[in-house]
Amino acid sequence: MTAHATHSNHAEGVGDVDAYMQHLGQQAREAATRMRRVDTAAKNAALLAMAERLGEARAEVLAANARDLARGRDSGLDDALLDRLALDEARLDAMIEGLGQVAALPDPVGEIDGLRSRPSGIQVGQMRVPLGVIGIIYESRPNVTMEAASLCLKSGNACILRGGSEARESNAAIAACIRAGLEQAGLPEGAVQVVATTDRAAVGKLISMPEFVDVIIPRGGKSLIERISREASVPVIKHLDGVCHVYLDATADPEKALAIAVNAKTQRYGTCNTMETLLVDAPLAESLLPRLAAAYDALGVELRGCERTRAVLDTLVVATEDDWAAEYLAPVLAIRVVDGIDAAMAHIERYSSRHTDAIVTENYTLARRFLAEVDSSSVMVNASTRFADGFEYGLGAEIGISTDRLHVRGPVGLEGLTTRKYVVLGDGQVRR
Amino acid sequence: MTAHATHSNHAEGVGDVDAYMQHLGQQAREAATRMRRVDTAAKNAALLAMAERLGEARAEVLAANARDLARGRDSGLDDALLDRLALDEARLDAMIEGLGQVAALPDPVGEIDGLRSRPSGIQVGQMRVPLGVIGIIYESRPNVTMEAASLCLKSGNACILRGGSEARESNAAIAACIRAGLEQAGLPEGAVQVVATTDRAAVGKLISMPEFVDVIIPRGGKSLIERISREASVPVIKHLDGVCHVYLDATADPEKALAIAVNAKTQRYGTCNTMETLLVDAPLAESLLPRLAAAYDALGVELRGCERTRAVLDTLVVATEDDWAAEYLAPVLAIRVVDGIDAAMAHIERYSSRHTDAIVTENYTLARRFLAEVDSSSVMVNASTRFADGFEYGLGAEIGISTDRLHVRGPVGLEGLTTRKYVVLGDGQVRR
Repeated sequence: MTAHATHSNHAEGVGDVDAYMQHLGQQAREAATRMRRVDTAAKNAALLAMAERLGEARAEVLAANARDLARGRDSGLDDALLDRLALDEARLDAMIEGLGQVAALPDPVGEIDGLRSRPSGIQVGQMRVPLGVIGIIYESRPNVTMEAASLCLKSGNACILRGGSEARESNAAIAACIRAGLEQAGLPEGAVQVVATTDRAAVGKLISMPEFVDVIIPRGGKSLIERISREASVPVIKHLDGVCHVYLDATADPEKALAIAVNAKTQRYGTCNTMETLLVDAPLAESLLPRLAAAYDALGVELRGCERTRAVLDTLVVATEDDWAAEYLAPVLAIRVVDGIDAAMAHIERYSSRHTDAIVTENYTLARRFLAEVDSSSVMVNASTRFADGFEYGLGAEIGISTDRLHVRGPVGLEGLTTRKYVVLGDGQVRR
Repeated sequence: MTAHATHSNHAEGVGDVDAYMQHLGQQAREAATRMRRVDTAAKNAALLAMAERLGEARAEVLAANARDLARGRDSGLDDALLDRLALDEARLDAMIEGLGQVAALPDPVGEIDGLRSRPSGIQVGQMRVPLGVIGIIYESRPNVTMEAASLCLKSGNACILRGGSEARESNAAIAACIRAGLEQAGLPEGAVQVVATTDRAAVGKLISMPEFVDVIIPRGGKSLIERISREASVPVIKHLDGVCHVYLDATADPEKALAIAVNAKTQRYGTCNTMETLLVDAPLAESLLPRLAAAYDALGVELRGCERTRAVLDTLVVATEDDWAAEYLAPVLAIRVVDGIDAAMAHIERYSSRHTDAIVTENYTLARRFLAEVDSSSVMVNASTRFADGFEYGLGAEIGISTDRLHVRGPVGLEGLTTRKYVVLGDGQVRR
C-alpha cells in the first residue's frame, strides 16, 4: 500500500485500481475509528469550514464544472443530464447553505434510548453510534458530493464517494474544499474521500470490500441500483422505483379528494413520490371523474383508464396491465375504478412498489385499516404522496429514500446512517 | 405449483426440492399478507393453542425424539450433539412455558413512535410492522422449532423453519402441534412452515428466493453462518463469534474487578458472551493477578499470559497471537497487562469480535469514554459480559444475537423481527 500512500486525489491515473480502492478503504476504516471519538463541535467546525472554502473556491469550482459541461456536450449528453451536471451561483449557494443546515441539526451519535433498570440491578439502554464506513455511488449531480459528505460526517461515519465520470472535474474541485475543511477542523483526511478514478472497476471493488466498507448507498437509476445490489458483498440501502397510489374512498371529502389527486400527480412529474395510479371507489366515479379529468386536462396530463373509468370518461385510452405497473415519471396517469377499500388494497398489494400509498377518506375505521394493512414505506391518510420526503418529514436532510425493509424504510436522514449498540451500566453485578 | 398444493409436511420425499421450496415460499408470502392484518388476540390464541397441543402430544413428540436419538447414536453423533437433540419432560415443560411467555409479551406491531406535527400541517410518525417472511436455519435443537415459530408469529411474520436433519422426526412432531394451533386460532397454515425435506438443496433454495423470503436468520456454528451469508441473495441477520473482553482499569474497585472477571469467564464456558481475554491495567498487576489466578485455579481455568503477566505469574503458558484472537468456549483464559484505557481499547479494537466488551472502573470519565468509543454490540461498565442476553436485557425473548451493524445489533427480540414504516395523517394537505 505504500505505493499509494502519497497519491493525490486529483490524479486521474491511479495505477492499479484494486490497490487504489483498497488504500481508500483502509484510510476510511482508520478514519472511522477516529470519527467515533470526535465530538459534535469538531464535526460542525469541519462542516462550516467546508462551506467557507467552497465560498472562496467558487471560481475554481465553476471553471471545473464548465470543463465537465463542455466535455459532456462534446460527447453528446442529453439536456436533462447536462442540467443535472450544471452548477451555477445559485446551486453553489444552496450547497453552502446545506452545509450550515447540517451543522445546525442535532447530532444523533451518543443518544441513549430506553435506559431501564433490570431486576439484576444493571441498567440497560441503546446508544446510537455511526455505521462505520459508507460507500456512496451516484451519477451526474456534483452537489451530491457535498451533500453526502456532510451527512456522513455529521453522523460520525467515514465515507467513500464515487460520482459520475461526467462530473469528475467538478467533483475534484469540491473534494479539495472538503479536504481543506477536514484539515482545518483537525479531522482525518480519510473521513471523506472522493474516488479520483473514473475507471468502472473502482465501483466493483468498492462494493466488495466488507473488511473496509460497512454499507453501500447507490443513488441513481433503477438499473444501476439493481446491478449494485446483485453484485455487492456489502449490505446495500437501496431505493428502487416509486409506483405510488392514491385511493379515493366513497367516504372521502370530494374537495380533499380532488386537491390531493391533482397535487400528487402534478406538483412534480419526475419524482419517486409522484402518484402513478389513481384508484377511485365506484360510488364516486360518476360525480368525481369528470371533475378530475377537467383538472388534469387543464394541466396537460394524459389519462388512461380501466373499462369502468371509460364508462364515465369515454375518450380515454384503455389502461393495460403495463400501465398498472408503470412508473411514468411523466404527465401520464392510470385510473382504475374499484369496489371499496378491499379491492383498492388488493390492487396496491399487487402493483405498488411499496414506496408511498395514500387513502382519502373521512371514515375512521377505513383510515385505521389502510394505515395498518398497506405495506409501503410511507402510508398516508388525506395527504398528498408528494410529502414522502426527508425534509417534509422533519429529518432535516435526506440521503435518499429506502424501499428496503431492513434497517431503514422510507426517507433516510442522519438517523438512518447510524445504528444502536447496547450499553450496560452496573455496580459490580455478576450473573447468577 | 399445483403438484405440491396438497403436499404433506410429514412427507420425507418431497420430489423436486426447488419446486417444493418455492411452494413453501409462495404460501409464506400469502400468509405474511394475512398476518399483517391479524390482531394480537388471534396471535396469542394461536400460541396458547400450540402450547395446549404440545401438552397433549407429549408422548408422540418424545417417541419421535427417541427415534431421532437412536438414529443419531447409530450414526455416531457425539454426546454434546445428542444432548442438544434430546427432549425430555422438563424440556417439553420449558417449551410450553415459553409459548405462554411469548403470548404474554406486548405486541410490537402497530406501535407508533414520534408522531409529530409538521409546519405543512401533516402529522408524521413511524409505525412498527412485521418484516414479512423470515427463514430460519438451525441445527440440532428441536426446541428451537417452537421458539422460532412463536417469536415470528407474535411479531406478525410468516416463517419457514429449516432444522437439522438429525432432529427431523422431532421437528415433524412439533410441526404438527404448530399446525393444529394455527388452525384452531384460524390463522393461515403458511404462517409457520417446517421444511419437511432433509435435502441440503432446500437451504440453498431458501436463501435465494428474495421474492418470497425477506430475511434469513441462521443459528448455528460460525462456518454455517459464514457460508449462508456468502451465498444468500436475501439479507441475513447473523451472529458470528464472541471474543469478549473485560478490562480492569487501575481505578477499579478490586472486589468488583475480581467478581466480574471470575463471573465473566466461569459462569458458563460455552456461551458467546463469555470473556475470552482479560486485560489488566499495569498498576493492578502485582496486587490483583495472584488473587485472580487463585480464583481461576480453584475453578480449573487454564491461564495463558503475556510476558508482563508472566512477570507476576511465572508458571503461566505464554499467550500467542492466536490466543488474542481465540474464542475458546472452554475453561481457558488469555490475560494481558496493558498500560491504561487507550492500550486496552486498542487491543479491543484489534481483537474483539465486537460482541460484548466491559470495563471495570470507578472513574466517571473513563466509563464514559469506554461506552462511547468501544464499537461492540454490547458495551458494559462494572457488569459481567454474561449479561449480554435478551432475557437479561428485558426483551422477554431472544431469537439470537446479532453481530451485524445494520438493522439490529446485539440480542434480537420481537422488535428486531419488525421494521418501521412512516405514517402520515393529514386533513387534505397538498404540497406547495
